Amino acid sequence: MKRHGKQSIIFDTWVNISSTASVVGPKEGEGPLGRFFDIILDDMLCGTNSWEQAESEIARQGFELAIKKAGLQKEDIEYLLSGDLLNQTTGTTFGIRDLNIPFLGLFGACSTMGEAMSLGAMLIDGGFAENALVGASSHHSAAEKQFRFPLNLGAQRPPTASWTVTGQGCAVLTKQGYGPYITAVTTGKVVDAGVTDANNMGAAMAPAAASTLVAHFIELDRIPDYYDVIATGDLGHIGHDLLIELMRKEGYDIRKNYVDCGVEIFDREAQDTHAGGSGCGCSAVTFAGYFYDSLKNKKINRLLFVPTGALMSPLSVQQGESIPGIAHAVAVENGA
Amino acid sequence: MKRHGKQSIIFDTWVNISSTASVVGPKEGEGPLGRFFDIILDDMLCGTNSWEQAESEIARQGFELAIKKAGLQKEDIEYLLSGDLLNQTTGTTFGIRDLNIPFLGLFGACSTMGEAMSLGAMLIDGGFAENALVGASSHHSAAEKQFRFPLNLGAQRPPTASWTVTGQGCAVLTKQGYGPYITAVTTGKVVDAGVTDANNMGAAMAPAAASTLVAHFIELDRIPDYYDVIATGDLGHIGHDLLIELMRKEGYDIRKNYVDCGVEIFDREAQDTHAGGSGCGCSAVTFAGYFYDSLKNKKINRLLFVPTGALMSPLSVQQGESIPGIAHAVAVENGA
Repeated sequence: MKRHGKQSIIFDTWVNISSTASVVGPKEGEGPLGRFFDIILDDMLCGTNSWEQAESEIARQGFELAIKKAGLQKEDIEYLLSGDLLNQTTGTTFGIRDLNIPFLGLFGACSTMGEAMSLGAMLIDGGFAENALVGASSHHSAAEKQFRFPLNLGAQRPPTASWTVTGQGCAVLTKQGYGPYITAVTTGKVVDAGVTDANNMGAAMAPAAASTLVAHFIELDRIPDYYDVIATGDLGHIGHDLLIELMRKEGYDIRKNYVDCGVEIFDREAQDTHAGGSGCGCSAVTFAGYFYDSLKNKKINRLLFVPTGALMSPLSVQQGESIPGIAHAVAVENGA
Repeated sequence: MKRHGKQSIIFDTWVNISSTASVVGPKEGEGPLGRFFDIILDDMLCGTNSWEQAESEIARQGFELAIKKAGLQKEDIEYLLSGDLLNQTTGTTFGIRDLNIPFLGLFGACSTMGEAMSLGAMLIDGGFAENALVGASSHHSAAEKQFRFPLNLGAQRPPTASWTVTGQGCAVLTKQGYGPYITAVTTGKVVDAGVTDANNMGAAMAPAAASTLVAHFIELDRIPDYYDVIATGDLGHIGHDLLIELMRKEGYDIRKNYVDCGVEIFDREAQDTHAGGSGCGCSAVTFAGYFYDSLKNKKINRLLFVPTGALMSPLSVQQGESIPGIAHAVAVENGA
């Protein structure tokens, strides 16, 4: 039986992660995880004429590199599942138009990498594909311009604001291989805690992360210590601490093995990133770069990867709406 | 073997469509298909304060009605797959926040209903769910404001422009049932024919529809006459005629059984809709209302439903990008 409870799946056949690729901006390259990334851009335009085109270009570079690292050709990939933060997901669609791979576009805000890995693994375990390419991206300058203020305006960022990561992370999932493997997934629900501050995404998303984590532990009958690392996507410093508190109230102590990709990717003091990293690319590149390496090298053997998304638009905030969140949990484990 | 060729799946167990629901605006209700829709709004605000909130409200109404018509409870649905045209897919996410169903957000522009039906069917056939809720929506006034001009400006629409449908169409897919069934799907690739006119979406999307149709016929070894009806999503009058010509060049005559939802949903002359209907809701409500009824009542027994999407944003057009298209084919058939 694959299904466990309302939200979780344990795969009959563990789904192999054959390769990953990560492309990041200069600032991410200078951060604590810099040496784990495949490509570090020299400049934010990446040889294009706009930040939006740059995001498409890093998507293209990431996908092509992951396919190459997996020893495959474009023609071997049956589905590409990906998304980003730009309006109408153009960061992805313009990046992949020459790849000629059947495409299923996703929007999960910054939880997109978790959604893509979950669906990709289901398509492989379900017998619909041998190989699937899954990914997510964001671009700091394009996101700031779209969601907050154009950078040229020099608007001051409040301490609760996070720093949208420039980066694309992706992975080739395959039916056959030697791991690490996607072994289980827990799909999140939309959770609205009533937060209305678009400069405090961590607080908006932490309740969704807690909801998914609790469902995962109950439905799979696991405790937090089952995992070497539990990594949320981009709660940042504020959301990270809030999640520990929310989980404590639910009866779970996650302090020992819990980290957040948005906390790990930047040096808070030296890089002046306030609440930490965010954006679809934040969890995607941290997984594709850092955690995949840690799993491959057996530094860790069991990761619960929980990308988190804030489901808002500038217009919804202007109209006084709250900011619902969502989080998808993906268990990634080495074989025995 | 489920997989046929590079893009197509034939399901081992046909996936049942247990119910559908359709909610449309006043103009769609006055159109030729009006009597097939479940709910026709009195006004475009649907009791809310904004067009965007109205879109979320029709999404909520549609999903709740479909669940009820299927004789199910919210708790019985394992996955909700849906999307819309609004920035960051807020039309969907704000509409479903009280449903408490695991959510996988999609973006396929106006092909979203095809993507949702394809993935929903795969999740059921793959053994991951008993019941899945799939849908898509759009709102004329919200879309015009976002993509073209605010209605209040009174901008003149060129003859090639289509009319974004106000509506939400959705379906409950189940493992068990008496049909109609989703029997096969062909997932589209991003196809860029170099069209740059955002007021001529039909021309931008027709090459993608042709690409998916040709793949479907070749990979499943079928001819167009296998189907009683082949229905594209929202090519409109111009795209409709263009697709017939593109298919003729590929060696297929589809004139006998080919229609487009964007052509069917409005009375071109009486309703002044120029090139026809468009938007995620166009194909979604035409399927959920009209075609599902035709299948249920055995007026037709084999439908190839091919929602079509234009993958652009206002910004991508401003930056001089072309408008790539995508189309996903879903075969819906009655049992013997």
